[in-house]
Amino acid sequence: MIVVMAMGATAGQVDHVVTLIREMGLREHVIVGTERTVIAALGDDRAKDKDKLENAPGVERVMPVLAPYKMASREVKKERTVVRLGGSLGGSVGGNSVALIAGPCSVENRTQLLEIAHQVKEAGATALRGGAFKPRTSPYAFQGLGEKGLEILAEARAQTGLAVVTEVMSVEQVPLVAQYADVFQVGTRNMQNYNLLWAVGEQRKPVLLKRGLSATLEEFLLAAEYIMSRGNGDVILCERGIRTFETYCRNTLPLAIVPEVHRISHLPIVVDPSQGTGHAHLVPDMSRAAVACGADGLIIECHHDPEHALTDGAQSITPQTLKDLAQSLQLIAKAIDRNVQ
Amino acid sequence: MIVVMAMGATAGQVDHVVTLIREMGLREHVIVGTERTVIAALGDDRAKDKDKLENAPGVERVMPVLAPYKMASREVKKERTVVRLGGSLGGSVGGNSVALIAGPCSVENRTQLLEIAHQVKEAGATALRGGAFKPRTSPYAFQGLGEKGLEILAEARAQTGLAVVTEVMSVEQVPLVAQYADVFQVGTRNMQNYNLLWAVGEQRKPVLLKRGLSATLEEFLLAAEYIMSRGNGDVILCERGIRTFETYCRNTLPLAIVPEVHRISHLPIVVDPSQGTGHAHLVPDMSRAAVACGADGLIIECHHDPEHALTDGAQSITPQTLKDLAQSLQLIAKAIDRNVQ
Amino acid sequence: MIVVMAMGATAGQVDHVVTLIREMGLREHVIVGTERTVIAALGDDRAKDKDKLENAPGVERVMPVLAPYKMASREVKKERTVVRLGGSLGGSVGGNSVALIAGPCSVENRTQLLEIAHQVKEAGATALRGGAFKPRTSPYAFQGLGEKGLEILAEARAQTGLAVVTEVMSVEQVPLVAQYADVFQVGTRNMQNYNLLWAVGEQRKPVLLKRGLSATLEEFLLAAEYIMSRGNGDVILCERGIRTFETYCRNTLPLAIVPEVHRISHLPIVVDPSQGTGHAHLVPDMSRAAVACGADGLIIECHHDPEHALTDGAQSITPQTLKDLAQSLQLIAKAIDRNVQ
Amino acid sequence: MIVVMAMGATAGQVDHVVTLIREMGLREHVIVGTERTVIAALGDDRAKDKDKLENAPGVERVMPVLAPYKMASREVKKERTVVRLGGSLGGSVGGNSVALIAGPCSVENRTQLLEIAHQVKEAGATALRGGAFKPRTSPYAFQGLGEKGLEILAEARAQTGLAVVTEVMSVEQVPLVAQYADVFQVGTRNMQNYNLLWAVGEQRKPVLLKRGLSATLEEFLLAAEYIMSRGNGDVILCERGIRTFETYCRNTLPLAIVPEVHRISHLPIVVDPSQGTGHAHLVPDMSRAAVACGADGLIIECHHDPEHALTDGAQSITPQTLKDLAQSLQLIAKAIDRNVQ
Repeated sequence: MIVVMAMGATAGQVDHVVTLIREMGLREHVIVGTERTVIAALGDDRAKDKDKLENAPGVERVMPVLAPYKMASREVKKERTVVRLGGSLGGSVGGNSVALIAGPCSVENRTQLLEIAHQVKEAGATALRGGAFKPRTSPYAFQGLGEKGLEILAEARAQTGLAVVTEVMSVEQVPLVAQYADVFQVGTRNMQNYNLLWAVGEQRKPVLLKRGLSATLEEFLLAAEYIMSRGNGDVILCERGIRTFETYCRNTLPLAIVPEVHRISHLPIVVDPSQGTGHAHLVPDMSRAAVACGADGLIIECHHDPEHALTDGAQSITPQTLKDLAQSLQLIAKAIDRNVQ
Repeated sequence: MIVVMAMGATAGQVDHVVTLIREMGLREHVIVGTERTVIAALGDDRAKDKDKLENAPGVERVMPVLAPYKMASREVKKERTVVRLGGSLGGSVGGNSVALIAGPCSVENRTQLLEIAHQVKEAGATALRGGAFKPRTSPYAFQGLGEKGLEILAEARAQTGLAVVTEVMSVEQVPLVAQYADVFQVGTRNMQNYNLLWAVGEQRKPVLLKRGLSATLEEFLLAAEYIMSRGNGDVILCERGIRTFETYCRNTLPLAIVPEVHRISHLPIVVDPSQGTGHAHLVPDMSRAAVACGADGLIIECHHDPEHALTDGAQSITPQTLKDLAQSLQLIAKAIDRNVQ
Repeated sequence: MIVVMAMGATAGQVDHVVTLIREMGLREHVIVGTERTVIAALGDDRAKDKDKLENAPGVERVMPVLAPYKMASREVKKERTVVRLGGSLGGSVGGNSVALIAGPCSVENRTQLLEIAHQVKEAGATALRGGAFKPRTSPYAFQGLGEKGLEILAEARAQTGLAVVTEVMSVEQVPLVAQYADVFQVGTRNMQNYNLLWAVGEQRKPVLLKRGLSATLEEFLLAAEYIMSRGNGDVILCERGIRTFETYCRNTLPLAIVPEVHRISHLPIVVDPSQGTGHAHLVPDMSRAAVACGADGLIIECHHDPEHALTDGAQSITPQTLKDLAQSLQLIAKAIDRNVQ
Repeated sequence: MIVVMAMGATAGQVDHVVTLIREMGLREHVIVGTERTVIAALGDDRAKDKDKLENAPGVERVMPVLAPYKMASREVKKERTVVRLGGSLGGSVGGNSVALIAGPCSVENRTQLLEIAHQVKEAGATALRGGAFKPRTSPYAFQGLGEKGLEILAEARAQTGLAVVTEVMSVEQVPLVAQYADVFQVGTRNMQNYNLLWAVGEQRKPVLLKRGLSATLEEFLLAAEYIMSRGNGDVILCERGIRTFETYCRNTLPLAIVPEVHRISHLPIVVDPSQGTGHAHLVPDMSRAAVACGADGLIIECHHDPEHALTDGAQSITPQTLKDLAQSLQLIAKAIDRNVQ
């Protein structure tokens, strides 16, 4: 940490900060500048709370030097993590291939899901998304089929070989979802539901972790760290749009996070252009953009009859659009020496 | 809902929208304007998904007319809800008095908590805050004392008569916390943890619901609606700052929500100036502002030794500052014909 | 500046940064930590561009230590600046009194303005606001009366003694506006129109500088610094709401800026609750909140017939509401040992 | 406009709104729903101020139906606008080719600019960017060479055939800049400097209009409308990043605006990945993403010695990086049936 003292801070105030730094198990290094004194606190300050110092008399500001995450950091592990998705198709996320995960927002019934599953497979997907437990803003909205939905997802996997990616919303659902899913999805609203992060961290199946609506990149990686710190290193980060002042789209999709994650972390990152924009007509272009800037995969909402979808119809593309898109994505991927799986 | 058709939408497209509206159990009312056609969908559209219509050919935009919450709405219940806090001091939130809830961020040990409890009572508080389960951004940070912390809180209540407000972080903690707490706190990271909302909705103790970091007012009231829809009407809303581009403060405290909640809802709203600013030196002024614009209470972090607090020292004021502040708040409250409890 | 080197940065990279620091006229201080090297660059780095260092090989991050403004800083001038407004009523902003500036959004015609001017004076205002040049989002909207509007404002001053606060939108309007106004208003859209800031900086009349819609506090003070650096120290800062994700209000009013400005700057700060909320029904409560947290004044839109106002009717309160509000504000002001002028 | 009345609004209140609607020259259409009354106001409401209605008794909300811009709208002009850039190379923006505009942030001296100009031409650019007048956040920072810089730009054009794109900061600079520039750049801080928009609207050279840091898409198009309404239809929109809570990048680059602009407007849109991210290491990937989602061009900061650049070194790429990038962009462009000019 770097402690910036206020102009005119007294020698006693500097001494007091030094005492606090030593109490934290760190070493101080005092630099007397022309206008103010700066004190560097040396040692591993990751778990140290800069709060303690901020309030001390004569302190103007405290700036951390070390990023607070370790296991998610590229400094600790240079080679990129490749996560195997499961399913007999054998897809993975994080290598040279770009993974395509597609399916409806919600599992609505057996016929709907099986039809869509076969269609997304044909379009080139290696994993099927679909919610059995649905977090909905309103308590009066459709909340998902629950276990029945999970059974249908498993049947779709048996028929198609697609890996199943589905959301788990709370600790007590983990064992049940674990019976059916290949990949746990932790939704945007639960990115900082730490008990849930720990619970999936104790499982031995991959976790697709969606970024919180207003989570900083550091908070996002710390949420991954919660999972990894319990022994599960198979974390797939997912950018799904952030909340800003913009109104033409449901969320703002900040794609620069893709190359930045690749720079500072070894974890793979996929992009959700459906949640990320909220409008089906924006999905193909933003999918292309995501692949072009290096995304390790896409997770796309796809429905054969969007107008009658129980949830998120406005942002679901049809299987035909998905098929056309997949061909286009293959060309983009080749332009950067990758390929769509 | 109001469906705005694109310029040049065909008669067939209008007919198709009308069909979709009827399928939703609503009635249509078609208005042909000079530049475009607008279709009003009449009936209770609260639980209807405007998504279905947005994607239909020829539709430009769909605007909901009804707010999606009911039980939290002032249209349904005109008189203001008053929530009794518990504790032998008999405080409440939502009437003419302004409630003062204070205490440390975390319960750290018995001595610390009892000392602070007596001091905040002396300053005029009727309820004690203090976390036994702490949601922390980093997995390496202090996570709270757990049940031991709850026991200490209960002892403080026995000694002081203060009601105990403490956070519950997951469904499985609800029965345990219910044994000790007078008021469940649902934290900002869990505002849309719907399973947790339902679980506390089934309890018969008040819930202090903190606004999510980037939750809209509508989402905030819908989270309250989740709790109320399970039979627990004693919801206290808590504004604790939102995430914006500002950096001089930890969060941006948007106080206009106080009079707006009073206009559209019957639920009481309290303000957390500690989380809402992140800096102890901003807490007194923002507490005064909150009372001046009508807040039904304040929840303030208070620590007798902020430099050694295990969490949130930078935003904790001392008991002496709290005492001085309480006197100042009394004057502000009187200026608007209220009083601090 | 503090330069944080990446883990594993080479000695050559550190040397290169040292060379760059010396080229900038600063001195280096190298601190070798356990995980990485940190280099402090000592000397006045206000006008130095940290950009140069950020791109150097092996550099992870550069953190400035000194705030880039000087003349606006409290470190340079301890006593608070009091700005005299002009007008025969002799009001000022920045002392113990809280100034009330009120009037219509736009000058619409002579009758309207004179009527409102007399009414706001009666309510207790010492200055009259009113736009003759109006920045409008749409080119098709009413753009103000121009010089005719300025003449009417001057007549209102002659009749009432109120100081005239009115907007200047571009450099070439400065001499004209200077003939009529007591205080130049620089609008939120022009907060970083540097040529305009310089132009009013060369005048010898106060400037009311509105915060840009997404300006940080540092950028806001640097805009003031532009004006002050040309010799005009009479700057009144004005918080008028920022752009966030919130939708129930036109802007989000972040009042914590008031005590923070008082901590780091000697300049007075007033609050605009009309622009700051966009709704007349929120204006009284937010005015009270602003005074309670220490605002040096309020600038309020007031119209005798809001439904027929040419601009901003939705956020204009009536003269009667203003009068009632002024009495309430007096009580709030007294609670913090101030008074409304 | 659609006026939503509050529940329980009286017949008199509805009548009053009808009167106001008629006064505005619009026709009313009253729809009595199950829970509340909705009134559609028919006719061209673009220039009408919904403010008037929002404040009327019994009104809950007013929702505009028509977008307020006309000339920038695709409804008015179906074919896409192609803007010729000038310069003997004959580049344009808005057709099937993707334009490459590159150069230093600032013109620093003759040697620097000429060297870079030749290099960006060799890399494939058709236009040269470079600031002679620089808007700087701090008054103590380098403000540009002024007319001397313009002369150097003209010399670079003479030597290379590149079109010159350079910023104009105020109305009085327009005639001077017009003598040297091929394309006026209006910077992000001036997007709502309406006098400047009008002044360049009266010129007959293209205008590259940068989006304001927190401008909505509607405000962005209305700024274009200001220019177009004075007779200059050659507007190139430029997305350069918005201000959000994110901190790993200087701005958040929201690329979904590219396909959305193509859907609702006929104007071309280019992307600035340098300002849009603030970090040279993010520029290549975000350039690829921008082209992949359909951007009509890129404007990139390029410097042969970023560490000694007077401005924006941290986000400038070298000519060699630009050259490599241009080849990669060509492959991306071909994948979507376009080509880099």
